[in-house]
Order: sequence, then C-alpha cells, then structure tokens
Amino acid sequence: MEIIFKPIGTIYSPFNETTGMPIQPSAAIGIHGCIIMNDEFIEGIKDLDGFSHIILIYYLHLIEHSQLLVNPFMDSVERGIFSTRAPARPNPIGLSVVRLIDIQDNNLIIENVDIVNGTPLLDIKPYVPECENYDDDYRIGWLTGNIYKLKNMKSDERFK
Amino acid sequence: MEIIFKPIGTIYSPFNETTGMPIQPSAAIGIHGCIIMNDEFIEGIKDLDGFSHIILIYYLHLIEHSQLLVNPFMDSVERGIFSTRAPARPNPIGLSVVRLIDIQDNNLIIENVDIVNGTPLLDIKPYVPECENYDDDYRIGWLTGNIYKLKNMKSDERFK
Repeated sequence: MEIIFKPIGTIYSPFNETTGMPIQPSAAIGIHGCIIMNDEFIEGIKDLDGFSHIILIYYLHLIEHSQLLVNPFMDSVERGIFSTRAPARPNPIGLSVVRLIDIQDNNLIIENVDIVNGTPLLDIKPYVPECENYDDDYRIGWLTGNIYKLKNMKSDERFK
Repeated sequence: MEIIFKPIGTIYSPFNETTGMPIQPSAAIGIHGCIIMNDEFIEGIKDLDGFSHIILIYYLHLIEHSQLLVNPFMDSVERGIFSTRAPARPNPIGLSVVRLIDIQDNNLIIENVDIVNGTPLLDIKPYVPECENYDDDYRIGWLTGNIYKLKNMKSDERFK
C-alpha cells in the first residue's frame, strides 16, 4: 500500500543545512520563518489568524535513509526510532508547534522555527491545548533525565 | 512533487464507521484500541514503553475528497480547513495523542482512541510536553466559544 501526498506549501527558515539547528521549537524561541502556501490552497487558511500556535506537519525531505535504532541528540544510548524525535524515520514526517505571527495573503509569518529552509509542508492544524495536552500524568521515558538539555541542544551531522 | 509513504502498522478500534465517533482523544477517555506494528518495524518501538502518551500520525483513509472550506463539528460557520481538525484535508493526515497502556511484542495497547478501525499508521512519536506545549499564551480563534462542546461531541456524516 502506497500513500501519496503533495505539498500544500513550502517552509522557509534561516537554516540552510540541518547541522547546527535547534532540535525543537522550544529550543528555537524567537527564530522567525515563513510559509508560502501554494495558490490553490489559500482558501483553506481562512480563520487561521485567530490561533496563536499552529501544528506544522511536513516532509523531512533531506532524509535519505531511515534507521530503526538511533543515537538521539539528547542521549548516548541507542533508542528505537519511534521513542525519539530523530528525523531518520521510516516515513520521514516532521511535526512542530510554532507561533503564528501574521498572515499576509499566502505568506504565514511564523516564530520558534526548528525546520530547515525549503521544507515541503503537508498539513497545518490549529494547536488546541484541549486536544493535545489533556492529561496531567505524563511520563517521558528515557528523556526524563535528558530533557534539561533540550533548550541548548543543536543538531549535528549524525542524520545527514 | 509527490511524496510516497507506506504504513508502519494498523490502528484497531471499536469504531467501524466514522459516524458517531468522539472527535478528539480528550473526548474518548477510556476507549481502548490497539496498534499492530508491521513486523519489519518492530525494532523501532524499543524504549517506547517508558512514555505514558504517544503521538499517532495516520492516514485518514476513508476521506475520498478534500474541501478547503468546511462546517466543522463544533461550529455552524464555514471555516478554512487548516483552521479546523476536520478530516477532509488536502493531505488527509490525522494526529492523535493517545495513552500507551502496554506493549506485547508487536501489539501496542492504547487508550483515548478517536480513530476509526483499520486506519493505516504512518508514524509514532513520543509525546513530550516540553516539545508540544511550551508556551503559556495560547489563543484558539473560532474555537474559543465552542471548545466546551468537545467532550460530548460525536462525529456525524458530513465528511463521508
């Protein structure tokens, strides 16, 4: 079974290569980028300007091969890919919650961008705390002792 | 540009049709389902059992055509598809944060399932509050006066 998607737009950012990037939006506070929507999808962003944060689902287009076990950026132990946010996934799909600053026609100005320049965008969803963050007893496994590293961590060349 | 993905597994749930379903995980508290991972990806779920919640990214396989403007379940006004969580998206990608109860070999038992039976799974990511819920000033646009409806809202036939 093959599932075929087409980009709805392109994400632009200050990061022209994947090395040295913030690895999550919360490590990219204040970094601006933009989304240029493809013309045929502009009607679909109506009402989006009421939301402070949006979920971007995008194609990690620079990943050339996937790995099932990875050494993630915040650990020195090999982990299952699905227990990490590493990009070398069987389906290289990226997910970032970014701040929506402004919309000018087909141009969405965004902030807290941890995405490489030129990334194909697959979907935008409004971020709604009641949908994504509805519980109060989160456990984060191997990240428990490592999450403090997040804000200062930069990507390196390991997934090139 | 075409992007081709293949399922990594299948999501099973009590919902054999899309009508009458909870529309988000927070409206599906206590509803169990499971994921059967395809054999070739089992190695990738190593270490996932340490996480209480996981993000499922899946293919909304029953959507036959997309709409750029929709009447979402929680409103009576036409909204841009990207400002809603409605399924009739240009790329029909679903996103749910569910509770991970147990893992037995290639079978992941999950809870708070708002997903139709037989849905192809594209990716699993660990849910990490520090990644997705890192701000404190969320605005939710047209949902502001409607979000109270979420917990009791069921889907109907409008996106069939």
